Amino acid sequence: MSSTRAFDKVFTKIDELKPEFIGMLSKAIAIPAVSSDESLRPRVVEKAHFLADHLKKLGFADIQLKELGTQPPPVSDPNLQLPPIVLARYGNDPAKKNVLVYGHYDVQPAKLEDGWDSEPFELVVDEKKQVLRARGSSDDTGPLTGWLHVVQAHQAAGVELPVNLITCFEGMEESGSLGLEELIGAEKDKYFKGVDAVCISDNYWLGTRKPVLTYGLRGCNYYQVTIEGPGADLHSGMFGGIIAEPMIDLVQVMSTLVDSQGKILIEGVDAMVAKETEKEQELYKTIDFSVEELNAASGSETALYTKKEDILKHRWRYPSLSIHGVEGAFYSQGAKTVIPAKVIGKFSIRTVPDIDSEKLTQIVVDHCHAAFKKLNSPNRCKAELIHDGNYWVSDPFNAQFQAAAKATKDVYGVEPDYTREGGSIPITLTFEEQLKTSVLLLPMGRGDDGAHSINEKLDISNFVNGMKLMAAYLHYYAESPEK
Amino acid sequence: MSSTRAFDKVFTKIDELKPEFIGMLSKAIAIPAVSSDESLRPRVVEKAHFLADHLKKLGFADIQLKELGTQPPPVSDPNLQLPPIVLARYGNDPAKKNVLVYGHYDVQPAKLEDGWDSEPFELVVDEKKQVLRARGSSDDTGPLTGWLHVVQAHQAAGVELPVNLITCFEGMEESGSLGLEELIGAEKDKYFKGVDAVCISDNYWLGTRKPVLTYGLRGCNYYQVTIEGPGADLHSGMFGGIIAEPMIDLVQVMSTLVDSQGKILIEGVDAMVAKETEKEQELYKTIDFSVEELNAASGSETALYTKKEDILKHRWRYPSLSIHGVEGAFYSQGAKTVIPAKVIGKFSIRTVPDIDSEKLTQIVVDHCHAAFKKLNSPNRCKAELIHDGNYWVSDPFNAQFQAAAKATKDVYGVEPDYTREGGSIPITLTFEEQLKTSVLLLPMGRGDDGAHSINEKLDISNFVNGMKLMAAYLHYYAESPEK
Repeated sequence: MSSTRAFDKVFTKIDELKPEFIGMLSKAIAIPAVSSDESLRPRVVEKAHFLADHLKKLGFADIQLKELGTQPPPVSDPNLQLPPIVLARYGNDPAKKNVLVYGHYDVQPAKLEDGWDSEPFELVVDEKKQVLRARGSSDDTGPLTGWLHVVQAHQAAGVELPVNLITCFEGMEESGSLGLEELIGAEKDKYFKGVDAVCISDNYWLGTRKPVLTYGLRGCNYYQVTIEGPGADLHSGMFGGIIAEPMIDLVQVMSTLVDSQGKILIEGVDAMVAKETEKEQELYKTIDFSVEELNAASGSETALYTKKEDILKHRWRYPSLSIHGVEGAFYSQGAKTVIPAKVIGKFSIRTVPDIDSEKLTQIVVDHCHAAFKKLNSPNRCKAELIHDGNYWVSDPFNAQFQAAAKATKDVYGVEPDYTREGGSIPITLTFEEQLKTSVLLLPMGRGDDGAHSINEKLDISNFVNGMKLMAAYLHYYAESPEK
Repeated sequence: MSSTRAFDKVFTKIDELKPEFIGMLSKAIAIPAVSSDESLRPRVVEKAHFLADHLKKLGFADIQLKELGTQPPPVSDPNLQLPPIVLARYGNDPAKKNVLVYGHYDVQPAKLEDGWDSEPFELVVDEKKQVLRARGSSDDTGPLTGWLHVVQAHQAAGVELPVNLITCFEGMEESGSLGLEELIGAEKDKYFKGVDAVCISDNYWLGTRKPVLTYGLRGCNYYQVTIEGPGADLHSGMFGGIIAEPMIDLVQVMSTLVDSQGKILIEGVDAMVAKETEKEQELYKTIDFSVEELNAASGSETALYTKKEDILKHRWRYPSLSIHGVEGAFYSQGAKTVIPAKVIGKFSIRTVPDIDSEKLTQIVVDHCHAAFKKLNSPNRCKAELIHDGNYWVSDPFNAQFQAAAKATKDVYGVEPDYTREGGSIPITLTFEEQLKTSVLLLPMGRGDDGAHSINEKLDISNFVNGMKLMAAYLHYYAESPEK
C-alpha cells in the first residue's frame, strides 16, 4: 500500500488549507445562481465565469464555457440563454487514466423569509455546530469546489495528480439539466474522448453517521397543469358563484393524483414498476437505517412506513408523486379575496425501473385531461411535462467503486454502505451510455444536510474528509489494473 | 325644485376643478396602503395622515386619528398596530341633518408583475380610454377623496354645504375592517351622536351603462386551513413516498369544499339560506343585465349560468365559495422539487340571509377537520376563520334612497336600478344597527372597474358625475321631510 500513501501529504495540506478552501467556497456561494429564476440567469452565468477564473489560476488548460443556446418553453423570455457548461482539463499524460468529474454550480431557490436562520447566499461558518450553512453548501457548490481544492492540495503538497482530470460543471441541474445531454453527445468523441471513469459528487449519505457509495438513482418527471378561464383576476364577491373558477378546477384535478398514504392514483403507473427480486430484498437487510433516522431527517413523525425495508424501498425503488405548489394563485400571508384567472399546479413523479418516461408522460397528461373533462368546466386545461430525467442503476463492485471503498476505509475507517438514492441526477445515465464508462456517485454531505430546504448545511468534517476521499479515490483508481 | 338647484354652481366648479381633483387623487394613490401586507403597514398609516392633512386644509374640524390597538392573530408581528380611523366633521349646525360618509383608504395588494399595464401605485390618466388607472382608483380611494372634493367645490362655488358632514375613513376594509366595529360601538353616543344617515360609496354599478343604488350586500367569511408535518421543507427525491406530504393532504381537504359548478359541498350551508319569495323574483325581471355583460366583465365565457335571473341570484342571494390560494407552497414560475413542510389553504364563503356567521364557521371548521381525519394522515390540521363580515339588506325606498334617486336623475338623466351586491362591505350592517340609521350605498364606479384585479380603473366621467351625484344627494336629502 506504500506507493499510494503519497496522498498522506495531500491530506495534511487539505487540513492546513481548510480556512482558504472555506473562503473560496464562501465566494462561490455568494453568487445566487438559481437556475429556475429567469431574473437571476445573469448571476448563474457570473458563477460559471467565477469558476473558470479559478480553474485558470490552478493551471487547468483548455478551459471552455460551452454555450447551449436558448432555453426551450415554457419560459417568459423566449430569448433566455442557458447557462454555459464549464469544461477544463488538468493533465494530459497518456500514461494516466482520465477521470471526468461532474458537478453543478446552480442551486435551488432560497429566500431569508422562507425561514432561514441567516441570509441563504452568505456562507455562515457555525463553529458551535461545526457546519457551513448556505444554499449550495452541500448541493452542490461545496462538493464541486472540493475537486478544485483537491488539485490545489496536490500542488501545495508537491504530489503529482495520479490521473488526468476533466471537469464538466453545469448550471441547469436544478432545472432539468437542459442542454447537458446534447453537449455530452456532441463532445463524447472530442472533449470527452478517452474518459475512463465519471465521478459525480452530488448526493448524500443515507443517514448522518456512515459514509456510502451510491449505485442507483430515481428519475424525476416534473409536470404542470395549467387551468385558465377569466380574462383577468376577478373579485370573488362580484364573480363568486357565477363563473367557473380555475383554482377550484385545479384542486379537483390535483386531488386525483395521489392519496395521503402516498399511493399514486394515476392508472398504469404501478404496472410499469419492476418486481422486487429476492437478491434485492437481501441487500436492504444490512443497511444502517431506521425510521428514527428518517424522523430525525424530516424533523417530524410523518413517516408513512415504520419498517426499514419499506422505507428504503419506497425511497429507492418505488415511484412517488409530490405536489409542489400553485403558480398564479394567492400565496402570501393574510387574506386576498381574488379569483385567480390562471393557475398552474406543479407536481413531479420520481421514476424507477422499468418506467418509460415518454409513456409515463402520456399516461399523466391523459389522466389530467380526463379528470378535468369530468368536471364539465368551461375553463381550459393543459397538462404538460416541464422536464424529465431518467433513473439509473449500476454495478457497485467495479474498479471505481472498489477504489472509492478503499478510500472510504482510509478516511473514515469503515466499509461504506452501498445505497441507492430517492433523488435524481438525471445526467448519470447519459454519462454512462454516451461515454461507455462506469459512473460512481461519491457523496460528500450527510442525509440531514437539507438540500432543497431551508438552512442547507455541510458539516465541516464532511467538507474536509470529502476532499480527502476524492483525493484517495483518485490515487486508488489510478493504480487499479482495471479501467 | 328651484331651491335645490344651488348645486348647479357646485356642478360647474366640479367640472372646473377636475384637473386639481385628479392631481389630489394621484397623490393619495401613490401611497401603497395595502392592509394585508404587514410590511406595508407604515404606508397605510402614512395615507391616514395624508388624508387628515387634507381635511384640515379644507376646514374640517375635530380631526381625530383613532388608534385601534394591536392586530389580533394570525399575524407575524404580535405588536402590529392597526391603522387609525380618520374622523372629522364639517359643519356643526343643529338645524342641519348630520350625514356620516364612510370610505376606506386601504387597498388590495397589487404588483406590476401581476400583469398590470403600468405601475399600480402610479395613477395613469388614460386620455384615449378616458379612465384613471391605478390600484384604489375605484376601490376606494377615488370615491373617498370624492367627498373631500365635493366640500371643496361647494367652497369654490360659494354654496353652503346643506348638511353637517362627518367622515369615517378606515384603513382595514380589505382585511376584515378589524377594529371598526368596536370603534362605532364606542363612538355611537360620542363622535357619531346625532348622525341621521350613513352614505357609503364603495361599490359599483351592476354593468357599465346604468347607475344603480344598492340595498343589499353579501357578507364574507374568510378561512384558512393549515396543514403541517415535517420540521422543514424537504427534498422530494429523498422524502417523496416515505413521508406524509402536507400539500397532498391540503389538496384532498380543499377538494371537498366546492365543485366546479360552484356547488358548496359543505353539509349544512345550503340549509341556512333564506327561501326565495315571489316578490323578490319580480325584482330581478326589470334589471338591465345579461350573460353577455357578465362575460364582458370576466373577459371570458366562463359563466356558470346563462339566464339573467340565475346570474343575479347567485351573485346576490346565494352563497359562494372561492379558493384563493396556498401560502407556503412553491408559487413561482418553473420547477422546484420541494415538499413544503407547512401549507395554508385560503378560501372564503360569501354569505347571505339567513346564514349565521358563527354557525357557519363551526360547520366549516368541523367539515375541514373531518375531511382531514378521513385521510388518516400523521400531519396536523387546523381550520380557522381569519375574518368575517355580515351580509346586509335594507329598504330601497326610504328618504336617503329617494334623495339619491332624484340626484341620479339629475346627473345621469335616468332612474337608477336597485341592486344588491355580491361583494361585502362588512361594516354596513354595523352602522345600521349601532347608529340606528339608514345606510345608503351610492356607487361611483362601473362593474368593469376591476376592483381587486389588475388594471383597476375609474372612468373619468364616473369620477366627475360621481362627485356631482354626491353633491346633489346631500342637497335633496337635506330638504327631505323625513330623516
